[in-house]
Amino acid sequence: MDTKKILAAYAKLGARIETRGRVKLAKKSDFSLWYTPGVGAAASHLAKHPKDARLMSVKKNSVAIVSDGSAVLGLGNIGPYGALPVMEGKALIFKEVAGIDAWPIVLDCHDPAEIIAVVKAIAPAFGGINLEDIAAPKCFAVESALVETLDIPVMHDDQHGTAIVVLAGLINAAKVVGKPLAKLKIVISGAGAAGTAVAKLLLVAGVKDIIVLDRAGALYRGRTKLSDEKDALAMVTNPRMVKGSLRDALAGADALVGVSGPGLATAADIALMNERAIVFALANPDPEILPEEAKRGGAAVIATGRSDFPNQINNALVFPGLFRGALDKGVRRITDRTKLAAAKALAALVAHPTSAKIIPDLLDPRVVKAIAKSVR
Amino acid sequence: MDTKKILAAYAKLGARIETRGRVKLAKKSDFSLWYTPGVGAAASHLAKHPKDARLMSVKKNSVAIVSDGSAVLGLGNIGPYGALPVMEGKALIFKEVAGIDAWPIVLDCHDPAEIIAVVKAIAPAFGGINLEDIAAPKCFAVESALVETLDIPVMHDDQHGTAIVVLAGLINAAKVVGKPLAKLKIVISGAGAAGTAVAKLLLVAGVKDIIVLDRAGALYRGRTKLSDEKDALAMVTNPRMVKGSLRDALAGADALVGVSGPGLATAADIALMNERAIVFALANPDPEILPEEAKRGGAAVIATGRSDFPNQINNALVFPGLFRGALDKGVRRITDRTKLAAAKALAALVAHPTSAKIIPDLLDPRVVKAIAKSVR
Repeated sequence: MDTKKILAAYAKLGARIETRGRVKLAKKSDFSLWYTPGVGAAASHLAKHPKDARLMSVKKNSVAIVSDGSAVLGLGNIGPYGALPVMEGKALIFKEVAGIDAWPIVLDCHDPAEIIAVVKAIAPAFGGINLEDIAAPKCFAVESALVETLDIPVMHDDQHGTAIVVLAGLINAAKVVGKPLAKLKIVISGAGAAGTAVAKLLLVAGVKDIIVLDRAGALYRGRTKLSDEKDALAMVTNPRMVKGSLRDALAGADALVGVSGPGLATAADIALMNERAIVFALANPDPEILPEEAKRGGAAVIATGRSDFPNQINNALVFPGLFRGALDKGVRRITDRTKLAAAKALAALVAHPTSAKIIPDLLDPRVVKAIAKSVR
Repeated sequence: MDTKKILAAYAKLGARIETRGRVKLAKKSDFSLWYTPGVGAAASHLAKHPKDARLMSVKKNSVAIVSDGSAVLGLGNIGPYGALPVMEGKALIFKEVAGIDAWPIVLDCHDPAEIIAVVKAIAPAFGGINLEDIAAPKCFAVESALVETLDIPVMHDDQHGTAIVVLAGLINAAKVVGKPLAKLKIVISGAGAAGTAVAKLLLVAGVKDIIVLDRAGALYRGRTKLSDEKDALAMVTNPRMVKGSLRDALAGADALVGVSGPGLATAADIALMNERAIVFALANPDPEILPEEAKRGGAAVIATGRSDFPNQINNALVFPGLFRGALDKGVRRITDRTKLAAAKALAALVAHPTSAKIIPDLLDPRVVKAIAKSVR
């Protein structure tokens, strides 16, 4: 569908989500119970017992989807209004897939300290915080400060949702190409929020040979002028100390995970990889390399983030179930153990992975339940 | 209904509002259009044309109901969790009465500068801001800063919603007792957000003799140790320079508007007023004086804020229609002219006011339309 038609569809619809009353206000007694004077009893009670907000308010089932629009899809720093359609789309998915009442909160502020202050301030009415499309490295500081402070689950989905779904995809892709996951040589293009989290979760899953690249090339121990986060990543990855460009890293690699932007690689680059290569080109809306091009380069298993190609490696497989599980179980933190369990649970839903089917479909109703169950 | 039963009903229900998708995600093509890759087109467009958020996002029809819980109902400073049930109840009313998608935002911060910063930060996803239950005098600074800064309507409902519905009630009560509105001697008990706004709007409506009292007694020109807001109010009210207590002010008054708290007045106090007195006891959930007690004191027209007594003078008659009109017309400010027009429109819906019926019912479907129409 072309841009014009898409915009026309959005304008015709208006909002993609709305609110709905869960009780009717048809009689005077409805107002007396659900508004004044009845609401006074609930207000007094929650003032004294704030934890009961999880029992008798929107906090029971709500998630704020928070973005400052500093790293929206593959579009970059396009601000809160640019971020709004994406967050609203996620709110739609939260409800349709997992029955969660999520609301888009797009922020007209960009300083990490301000973002932290705003999210802390608005937290009481929400049962969880989904941070989204906040640029690295500030996303790391924002997430860790909020995880430390708030008593509700806080997750930066670009990091952990992506990491979980990528790991799930790699578990099954490894089966398809007949190589053990832990032995894969994996190249991650992109050292931002997603790339960092993917690398960390792959390490947790036992993968040893990971090379992460930023715009300047491969991260390695001792590379100068790295941010703290990239320096930390360089310390635990790239055991062969590969230096240089993506082509240097791809030589002899088994898998490429693209979490950067369009136009990154060509068929010739993919041809440098080992036999039966795995290529995940996850940038949205435009992938790092189009599937047909990757195939020409010899890739055996190809995935993108999009719904109009096979093997959609998309966070939407993960975030609804993770928050469903966290809300239902009153879980405060999404741990590494949960992330690993979620990835395995997601992968296990594809009983017989093939090159055309390594990951469950977004419409598969088993997904949200399997992920929710893995939250502990 | 007793407190226990109310809390049980709230706990059984959980949240009173939820979100709902306005499109289904049933097919892959639904994801392609309403999420990725389609949403990229909307994101790029709104980044360049932020005003179009009013056409193709939740901003079109949404209101944030924002409170720090510093002055909740008549319950005082009970914090964000205490405020949450009230804001959620308003969100329910917004939707059921006016079709507006409102979301409760309760703030875990209390400094006016912080409240202003947070509301400014979250404004992009909302089409309007309903400030609620924020204590005076900080509510004045918060509201005026946000009205100046934001390009969406911002209204502190405790001030202006109350003022409008009180004026509407007084217009009709004056008819019932056969006295011209402008000639009424009106006593306002409470110099907080509501009392201040009621006094100001009554002045706009042509009332001359208004006495406003705070806890220390009548405000008058030259009273020492007044806040800036109270000092300004003292300059334009109390032309007879009445000093002293509520009893001093009530002597010879035609109307009492209570916007303070329970247990304020007795039948003996009401008996000090002129014949055919008007008593509005609006504190929620417990009024300043119960209707039967006011009647014993000789009051001819009695109103409260509650739905379980006749003549419910409640903001819920006003805020849905005001925001409905503002959203539909793209109005940025709720002016004095609009407030006056709204009060007159509301009063006019009662064709033949009587002591038992001075204000339309909350369930009257004409209310929201009449108020929305008065927004200009």
